[in-house]
Amino acid sequence: MKKLILPKGFSAAGIAAGIKPKKKKDMALIVSDAPSVTAGVFTTNQIKAAPVKWDIQVVEHNRSRAIVMNSGVANACTGTQGETDTQAMAALTASPLGVEAADVFVCSTGTIGKFLPMDKIFNGIEKLYKHLSPDNGLDAAEAMMTTDLVPKSLTVEIEIGGKPVRLTGLAKGSGMIEPNMATMLAFILTDAKVEKHALQCALRAATDTSFNRISVDGDQSTNDSVIALANGMAGNDVLTQDSADWGLFFQTLEKMLFELAMMIVRDGEGATKLVTVRVIGAGSNGEANEAARAVANSMLNKTAWAGKRPNWGRIMDAIGYSHAQVQENRVDITYDEVPLVRGGMAYPGASIDDAIAVVAKDAFTIHINLNLGGGEAVVYTCDCTEEYVRINVE
Amino acid sequence: MKKLILPKGFSAAGIAAGIKPKKKKDMALIVSDAPSVTAGVFTTNQIKAAPVKWDIQVVEHNRSRAIVMNSGVANACTGTQGETDTQAMAALTASPLGVEAADVFVCSTGTIGKFLPMDKIFNGIEKLYKHLSPDNGLDAAEAMMTTDLVPKSLTVEIEIGGKPVRLTGLAKGSGMIEPNMATMLAFILTDAKVEKHALQCALRAATDTSFNRISVDGDQSTNDSVIALANGMAGNDVLTQDSADWGLFFQTLEKMLFELAMMIVRDGEGATKLVTVRVIGAGSNGEANEAARAVANSMLNKTAWAGKRPNWGRIMDAIGYSHAQVQENRVDITYDEVPLVRGGMAYPGASIDDAIAVVAKDAFTIHINLNLGGGEAVVYTCDCTEEYVRINVE
Repeated sequence: MKKLILPKGFSAAGIAAGIKPKKKKDMALIVSDAPSVTAGVFTTNQIKAAPVKWDIQVVEHNRSRAIVMNSGVANACTGTQGETDTQAMAALTASPLGVEAADVFVCSTGTIGKFLPMDKIFNGIEKLYKHLSPDNGLDAAEAMMTTDLVPKSLTVEIEIGGKPVRLTGLAKGSGMIEPNMATMLAFILTDAKVEKHALQCALRAATDTSFNRISVDGDQSTNDSVIALANGMAGNDVLTQDSADWGLFFQTLEKMLFELAMMIVRDGEGATKLVTVRVIGAGSNGEANEAARAVANSMLNKTAWAGKRPNWGRIMDAIGYSHAQVQENRVDITYDEVPLVRGGMAYPGASIDDAIAVVAKDAFTIHINLNLGGGEAVVYTCDCTEEYVRINVE
Repeated sequence: MKKLILPKGFSAAGIAAGIKPKKKKDMALIVSDAPSVTAGVFTTNQIKAAPVKWDIQVVEHNRSRAIVMNSGVANACTGTQGETDTQAMAALTASPLGVEAADVFVCSTGTIGKFLPMDKIFNGIEKLYKHLSPDNGLDAAEAMMTTDLVPKSLTVEIEIGGKPVRLTGLAKGSGMIEPNMATMLAFILTDAKVEKHALQCALRAATDTSFNRISVDGDQSTNDSVIALANGMAGNDVLTQDSADWGLFFQTLEKMLFELAMMIVRDGEGATKLVTVRVIGAGSNGEANEAARAVANSMLNKTAWAGKRPNWGRIMDAIGYSHAQVQENRVDITYDEVPLVRGGMAYPGASIDDAIAVVAKDAFTIHINLNLGGGEAVVYTCDCTEEYVRINVE
């Protein structure tokens, strides 16, 4: 049995508390032996679940010892009752550690609009503490799953100032899902000693180039949270943005978030392929982003990819109605290395067979050059099959 | 056999020119015996098909005698060749009438990025003139179809200043479709005598409350066109916005466009139900529109409706990430007459059985009150079934 090696001082558990049916694991606990420097990036949805509002304060408090999470119920759209339940969940988790409720992150994912079954949560927390171990990281990753087909986690070890430092990432998410799933969570644990401001900046920047660049169905959830805990137990000199090893640490973090994000897209509901949409030559980076997202979120493009069809007309249409400025006769489109559009029209030498071969692959890139300026952006998405609809209908 | 009665002085034809496979009708011609006052509303997509650019000039010219259209090839993203082909199509249609090319509207719908097969178009126009008759309106409606399951047309007769006046509408569209369909067309024909400015204002306003309020998949095509021809042969005194009968004329036009729009939504690819999303209490009408469209275009909502599930959490999520300002604890949501959300939370007395019964219907309305201001908007949409994906994948 594979096991997830956690950074020094971290232990984890994942158990079935009876919130989800069929005795599936539905609660996870992560505990750090030492108070951690914390950082967080949260959903921009105006409707934020109660635990998201709570966690924003926990980041400010900045000495977190634990993350407690449940799947099955999102505790979103639950009013003051939802806030009380979140607080109780934090307090009950804090008690055995002898710390404050404000030292505990709370995450929920699942159905919107339902109250947490607090009796099951309470019993679940007790059970979690019994299973807490440095060896149980994979159980925690499994308990985070909703319609995810695979748990998502990885650990990387680097050397900072001569000390071995580990980073572990755990994530869940595969589209917003039945019924009303609410939905992307990622926890980053490290034993590195990191200055708070640097950690927050790094987490924000790494999120922008990873989780914020993926799109399964264009829906942004009420519960999306990326949380980082750095407990400093590796014993390195505190890392700041001026440290010699800062670049290494940041790049490792960024790569970890990117890999977790790719795991999420590849596990997108019903998805069969990873599609990279890269826009260059836009009037600005913002406009490039608008164009890339219009393509990535277009149902017509997503279904075309599922059908292995290099329908560049659907790409032209999507960039045309995007908020990016587009000049038809300047647009070039290339699938991997196969040019299909030059100057807004079919490339005369285009090989449709070559293009079909590209779209038939598990992963390919659509390069769009608007030839108007220096703006660029990339979005990672997946195709949309009948399976996506089946999952979300049933 | 049913037949479509056309307004006085109009005749029509629809034939198979060999552009579409299986000898399906793929070209239509509509001719007016007298020069018509014209109006047009066209796609806002920055990538406009060659015929759209042409028709904008025909509206300015304002003495149109004919509409020629083909399905199968959209003549979009075809550069100067596409413009030349459009002009040739207009000129060849104008010739037998002894008028200028600029008196002829040209519409194309079908694959983006392909050139028109001009030999087939030329032979088709010849054949169309042989079949031209006041009795062949339904053939024209049929030739407009792409993945439409049913042709869409209707005629209404009213009395203006003591004279009988007819309005006929023909439309096509059911989502943007394989491969790269480009795609909503509507022709409004009337024998009323109408002042040009009044006709343009009326067509714009009626389009805003009908075609611009429907959403099948959120994609806006390169070819969307709504064109009106008023040939004045009913012999009424010219209608202006100050005429006594203006209200009757405008309301009839508006109702006709609305009915055509509803026919399009009901014929949406794979759609099984018509869903009306009505938002009130928004900060402005524009914000209400943003909220309604976010709900209507959300794949998660569309698939929930297909699954007959009243998932109000997905509604909360969509309005939360829309560009409308939303305050969670003020939101009320009602399905037809069944209250489900009050103050952003599950309505305690909500009957889930009643709500399921609403969503199981062929048509229902979701009422969303943001309780923030006086802005309101309505959007008509359909559900998304596996059939939608099947159509667009295959």
